[in-house]
Amino acid sequence: MVTKLYNTTLEVDLTNYQDLIRDVPDFPKQGILFKDITPLLNSPIAFNKTIKDMCYQFRNEEIDSIVAIEARGYIFGAPIAHELQAGFIPVRKQGKLPWNTTSIEYSLEYGSAVLEIHKDALRRGQKVLIVDDVLATGGTINATINLIEQAGAEIAGIVVLIELLELRGAELFNDYKVTSILKT
Amino acid sequence: MVTKLYNTTLEVDLTNYQDLIRDVPDFPKQGILFKDITPLLNSPIAFNKTIKDMCYQFRNEEIDSIVAIEARGYIFGAPIAHELQAGFIPVRKQGKLPWNTTSIEYSLEYGSAVLEIHKDALRRGQKVLIVDDVLATGGTINATINLIEQAGAEIAGIVVLIELLELRGAELFNDYKVTSILKT
Repeated sequence: MVTKLYNTTLEVDLTNYQDLIRDVPDFPKQGILFKDITPLLNSPIAFNKTIKDMCYQFRNEEIDSIVAIEARGYIFGAPIAHELQAGFIPVRKQGKLPWNTTSIEYSLEYGSAVLEIHKDALRRGQKVLIVDDVLATGGTINATINLIEQAGAEIAGIVVLIELLELRGAELFNDYKVTSILKT
Repeated sequence: MVTKLYNTTLEVDLTNYQDLIRDVPDFPKQGILFKDITPLLNSPIAFNKTIKDMCYQFRNEEIDSIVAIEARGYIFGAPIAHELQAGFIPVRKQGKLPWNTTSIEYSLEYGSAVLEIHKDALRRGQKVLIVDDVLATGGTINATINLIEQAGAEIAGIVVLIELLELRGAELFNDYKVTSILKT
């Protein structure tokens, strides 16, 4: 299916991203059904359309910067920044950013993790859009919101490619505009 | 300097990316002077111009896919894929890609590392462009070339934001078209 869709304009149903997302059982750990987006990324037409769809609701919002979460979030966040002519701010795991950082610890299903942002990345009143690949339980995005709001910046919205409805992560973000392209 | 450059069209000298790249001593280890590109990324004008400059030499080459290296390579590779209407293929560190992979081990200054690519990412004859943030010794890019050529795909070129001339990494790639925006 996927190879057929590559480099062809006629056979791609652009409304149907699902065909280009592959379920991988037991990754990254036993019992998790992972959504592998790499076939979608490697279809020029589908990837291009995905980025445009993710930008759609924010075209007239004068977004200053995209805040994207390492590492798959960068694959969507950076082209969205380019398309919206915004800046790009990386959020990274602990110890990966080279300069002075603000960090936040948050809970995972087992244990915890730390996310960091550069101290000079955000200004008070700056309007940012949060971008990631998947909205699952919402823990990572929630931690990112805290980093942004601590700096006094304003969140224009949250945009993800895939929302895993069963995990109800979006309920954490009732106060924000949340856009997901594919709900599953 | 950096804050002044943010959100202004008049004061940015677009030929001078150097002002938006910050030297961080002793990162990630003692004795290394790290090039921090985050001020450039967060300047909408400079980031937009950087992506266009990185695409410039490859606009008429009918690139099928961008192959970009985790994680900073994605920040350039994904918008270049969007701009050139190409697909995007992630190269990742060991254990990060969810599906079946081809892997390669390569030497670092101390020890070694492993890079992986999905087995179905590349087709014979597919024309790809390699994208990363920095060309230093060239080890990571060289390993990526091996992954691509093992699959029978064709390398149209290598494009990086920064080339560290002192390390002479480009000498490894005399058989390829290498483009760097900033030589330092």
